Amino acid sequence: MRVAVLTHTKNIDKQTLEKPICADDEVIVEIKAVGLCGSDIHYYEHGRIGSFVVEAPIILGHEASGVIVEVGKDVPTRAVGERVAIEPGIPCRKCDYCSDGRYNLCPNVRFLATPPYDGAFCEYVAMRADMVYPVPDTMSYAEAALIEPFSVGLHAIDRADLAMGENIVIMGMGPIGLMTAAAASMRGAGEVIGVDLEGERLELAKRFGVTKTINLAEENLEEAVLKATAGKGADVCIETAGSTKAVQGCLQVVKRGGKITIVGMPPTDIAELNISDIVGKEVDINGVFRYHHTYPKAIKLLEKSTIKLEDMVSATYKLEDTAEAIERAINDKKSTMKLIIEP
Amino acid sequence: MRVAVLTHTKNIDKQTLEKPICADDEVIVEIKAVGLCGSDIHYYEHGRIGSFVVEAPIILGHEASGVIVEVGKDVPTRAVGERVAIEPGIPCRKCDYCSDGRYNLCPNVRFLATPPYDGAFCEYVAMRADMVYPVPDTMSYAEAALIEPFSVGLHAIDRADLAMGENIVIMGMGPIGLMTAAAASMRGAGEVIGVDLEGERLELAKRFGVTKTINLAEENLEEAVLKATAGKGADVCIETAGSTKAVQGCLQVVKRGGKITIVGMPPTDIAELNISDIVGKEVDINGVFRYHHTYPKAIKLLEKSTIKLEDMVSATYKLEDTAEAIERAINDKKSTMKLIIEP
Amino acid sequence: MRVAVLTHTKNIDKQTLEKPICADDEVIVEIKAVGLCGSDIHYYEHGRIGSFVVEAPIILGHEASGVIVEVGKDVPTRAVGERVAIEPGIPCRKCDYCSDGRYNLCPNVRFLATPPYDGAFCEYVAMRADMVYPVPDTMSYAEAALIEPFSVGLHAIDRADLAMGENIVIMGMGPIGLMTAAAASMRGAGEVIGVDLEGERLELAKRFGVTKTINLAEENLEEAVLKATAGKGADVCIETAGSTKAVQGCLQVVKRGGKITIVGMPPTDIAELNISDIVGKEVDINGVFRYHHTYPKAIKLLEKSTIKLEDMVSATYKLEDTAEAIERAINDKKSTMKLIIEP
Amino acid sequence: MRVAVLTHTKNIDKQTLEKPICADDEVIVEIKAVGLCGSDIHYYEHGRIGSFVVEAPIILGHEASGVIVEVGKDVPTRAVGERVAIEPGIPCRKCDYCSDGRYNLCPNVRFLATPPYDGAFCEYVAMRADMVYPVPDTMSYAEAALIEPFSVGLHAIDRADLAMGENIVIMGMGPIGLMTAAAASMRGAGEVIGVDLEGERLELAKRFGVTKTINLAEENLEEAVLKATAGKGADVCIETAGSTKAVQGCLQVVKRGGKITIVGMPPTDIAELNISDIVGKEVDINGVFRYHHTYPKAIKLLEKSTIKLEDMVSATYKLEDTAEAIERAINDKKSTMKLIIEP
Repeated sequence: MRVAVLTHTKNIDKQTLEKPICADDEVIVEIKAVGLCGSDIHYYEHGRIGSFVVEAPIILGHEASGVIVEVGKDVPTRAVGERVAIEPGIPCRKCDYCSDGRYNLCPNVRFLATPPYDGAFCEYVAMRADMVYPVPDTMSYAEAALIEPFSVGLHAIDRADLAMGENIVIMGMGPIGLMTAAAASMRGAGEVIGVDLEGERLELAKRFGVTKTINLAEENLEEAVLKATAGKGADVCIETAGSTKAVQGCLQVVKRGGKITIVGMPPTDIAELNISDIVGKEVDINGVFRYHHTYPKAIKLLEKSTIKLEDMVSATYKLEDTAEAIERAINDKKSTMKLIIEP
Repeated sequence: MRVAVLTHTKNIDKQTLEKPICADDEVIVEIKAVGLCGSDIHYYEHGRIGSFVVEAPIILGHEASGVIVEVGKDVPTRAVGERVAIEPGIPCRKCDYCSDGRYNLCPNVRFLATPPYDGAFCEYVAMRADMVYPVPDTMSYAEAALIEPFSVGLHAIDRADLAMGENIVIMGMGPIGLMTAAAASMRGAGEVIGVDLEGERLELAKRFGVTKTINLAEENLEEAVLKATAGKGADVCIETAGSTKAVQGCLQVVKRGGKITIVGMPPTDIAELNISDIVGKEVDINGVFRYHHTYPKAIKLLEKSTIKLEDMVSATYKLEDTAEAIERAINDKKSTMKLIIEP
Repeated sequence: MRVAVLTHTKNIDKQTLEKPICADDEVIVEIKAVGLCGSDIHYYEHGRIGSFVVEAPIILGHEASGVIVEVGKDVPTRAVGERVAIEPGIPCRKCDYCSDGRYNLCPNVRFLATPPYDGAFCEYVAMRADMVYPVPDTMSYAEAALIEPFSVGLHAIDRADLAMGENIVIMGMGPIGLMTAAAASMRGAGEVIGVDLEGERLELAKRFGVTKTINLAEENLEEAVLKATAGKGADVCIETAGSTKAVQGCLQVVKRGGKITIVGMPPTDIAELNISDIVGKEVDINGVFRYHHTYPKAIKLLEKSTIKLEDMVSATYKLEDTAEAIERAINDKKSTMKLIIEP
Repeated sequence: MRVAVLTHTKNIDKQTLEKPICADDEVIVEIKAVGLCGSDIHYYEHGRIGSFVVEAPIILGHEASGVIVEVGKDVPTRAVGERVAIEPGIPCRKCDYCSDGRYNLCPNVRFLATPPYDGAFCEYVAMRADMVYPVPDTMSYAEAALIEPFSVGLHAIDRADLAMGENIVIMGMGPIGLMTAAAASMRGAGEVIGVDLEGERLELAKRFGVTKTINLAEENLEEAVLKATAGKGADVCIETAGSTKAVQGCLQVVKRGGKITIVGMPPTDIAELNISDIVGKEVDINGVFRYHHTYPKAIKLLEKSTIKLEDMVSATYKLEDTAEAIERAINDKKSTMKLIIEP
């Protein structure tokens, strides 16, 4: 099968590998669409993310969907021909976290496109059968692939325990910000206030449930949030921009007793936070790492919603143009929201 | 009545004032014991805490108990002669926070010994009747006064949502650390791990439910916590030391998916926190500001417990020696845990 | 002012009374629309609901909206001319329930149209100012009045703690069933399965977020729910029909570990429930009594939603035709969903 | 090995069987103590419990502890010689319930002494290694065996979400009632009110954390609960008696907004419940089926507590006297609390 392999930093080769063999508890999925994620770009540019280091050639891509072409003999529940979304992290099911319902924290997880595990920029992937989810015929492969980043948004909203009618501020209107806005909107948020520096992104955000926008290039964050919330401040703030300054902004605009959820990983790790604000406002701050139990509900919610995740797709590329797609994402940030690879 | 008045920074005068008048919904309490709190000391030394500034002479002291000597005409539930603990913050009962059950966040609260409201270093205090709670005859006035700081410990444990059997690390074995340990112990914590730099404090902590101690003057925090938790890390960390370094320590030793609760206000406000740890470990961080709904349960729990809050009292002073007590607390930190003023 | 007074069972008189006087913390609302509720009908027919007995002439009607015509001197937040929805229960703000955030359980509540308190089938009502909520100009008075029963649906969904994507079965497609469906839909339910005996009601339900319907006149409940949930059973069941048989049905169709929320008051009180099912399935059952903190969020949600509460209004009556409206509701149940009185 | 086999109703044979073989992920435990449970007695007398029918000879007994004598080759975490408590239900780890953290609801669970799976009235049992938990040397085998019923008490308290200081009424002072009292006490309950018809049981209950007792042979339930709770009613009621009348009693004595947790399976299944009470009081009712994630915390809590589970052991029997023990439990209910079999 054809694959796109990251051989070393900033080099992706087109190669041909053996099609994977289907274990008894697996299915083989012919990949139809893969979203390009910031982490793929980061591995391409830097060869590592935190403690995860690319030490051997690796296939990137973990936002994937496709069609089942082979079913392992111990898998009565799946069938050849089913169109499926792939949940890319395979938890061990045995550790304390798996047993406790938080399998996203499983230390033994095998996650696609996270070293040393290969991803989905290729024609076929073998997956444990419980990690693939049939999608309705009305859902495109691109949308099915985007369930992965949508899952992050859903989990963020879940960690924030967003109540109906609460006003939410979302820092960063990149793909994860939009996904979070969509999830918040579907859960009955009050005002969904999108914050970014780019007018185009803020405009697009309105198709993802954002009701009010704040352009930091033109407005003062604190004043604008107070105005948008009748002077109360944000009930919930979600940081998706990966910026330490945005985390500080959350602490400023969250109301007393409010909640801050941090999804973005800032490149410099360290943020100077005002502890007296955390204490004096009695704030809750929740980290978000990937997601758990999101795929079935995402499929149902998307089927019912008027929001179309595909609206964030800027362009679609063939497998052999994977490197080109990544380069565009790096060099043309402003006009690039989400790119899709179609093997 | 006799009062001890902070006239300006580092000066407390003995004065005589009119006994307060009892409003229809109030009671007059003859004060019998008042705990000296860090905030009293801070106002004495610096004349302010954050945005609360002492602009006129003020009576300090808010950890108070006494006996009812007069009852307002609209208060059928209280009687002269009842021994009571005083909850020092009077919420407005009308704002969103009061209506929502989090009256500790009420912006209109009148809190004893917080400018511009006077406290309890005096003979008589008038209190809204719903803020005084009868205590059993077996409870001393000193213990009744200490329900106030114990409330902070109870609320911290509540905010951390400590589950039975969870291992908890408490940073700082000052009065609030001990109170938190006691509360954790009463709620069925697993290991209660006390952390401090002073051996004496750690020794005393064992009488407050601490099962294991870590002396940071001798041990490495991370290693010691891993050892004390069978390699798992802390389920819950509570910061009571008011130290930014301690907050960072919490982030190091908390397990993946664990919880951090911050009670202490660090003097410098700003802490450098590793956001990637918050995200990658999917941590919860909860601020704690005072407490709500703690008095009735504190009274019940203390009645049943083998822990005696009075064990932390280092010495008792008369009202006229209030300044002396404060000076000792400032100058002799090592041998001073909690001081009590008896008007 | 003109009023419609229930003088004794099954008799409503048109009378003229003094316009109410505005207390300092009140506003006077000129009533524009009042929904007719099942409890109004019950008082009209039977003179009592449980322990609430009509012992003197009473004005019924508690689902009300209008325009402010007078503002008490201690009410800086409201203004003459504001269009408002009225929350009809005035809690005491002092009891344990009010302090704890569950003011719907306040034993001292004064609730419109619940003896001995008068309701809103009249021209003017005096209300404590914190119980009236401005509504946007785009919201009709009828819709503003219907926030009251919508609040019951919101509170039911809140008590059930409905998670996104969960499949919910709602027993009874009367006004409260429809309101519950709407609330479930706005919170991101999966399938919203409406159950009733009347095809017309089931048809109307589709405009309130119901995605699948079960007509008990034609289908077997258990089979139909299993079919609608891919064999899993209901995650959440909500009983709004006021039928003991419906409660039993909930226990049959709820999945293991599922939740049942009971809103309807069955006329005979007693239901035979299978305790072994409650235990063996480890079910949660939650009662729902009125609501709390729903008005601000209801207003926001309705502003954003495509669901229009007015779609359930069968007809509108003048104040002098109140008796006629009630008689229609009694005699023509099939074609009557919700009636509105416009004073 | 020697075993006690229930061959048919009311007949237990002493037999000799092959010692079990240790699978790679298992350990072999030499059984040292087994508690006799009501379900063992029920299978002995009636040959079935609900849908679980004894269709072939079966070894009963599921409250077990012992010492590891063999370790499977894939089990690095356990060692020969370790003293262990056995959690008797082996969940599948793959179904939705297992994945969600509620493995007690796993439909594929293999539970000791529940047909068709054998139990522990024998010399050796093979168990999946993650289901055995080392206990400290200070814990007797009898106490280690009793962690099983203690787990039910812990889970009941967890389902009730008992808050510190809440007053709890426990119906039935049999073994599960005592275990629930112990768990409530360890979690910081306020009053722990034990209800039974037998004075001896109520006396014993005081050693398990019960602070007040109600003897229904002498007192009126409602009056006595009101007296014990200062007129407020119970915050939490737990039904462990397996009596429909006790469930009704819970509904009477629980306060508005209170919680009822049902552990006991009444023999007749059906209880007549007042739905208007569930709705009007806005009560929560929670079923309890077995437990999950209780063993590690139980071991820690028992190590710290002054409560000794062994205090409820009425007598100890040898394996060959199992039938005699069961007959005593049937015929001498009054003086028999818990019996232990020591193989």
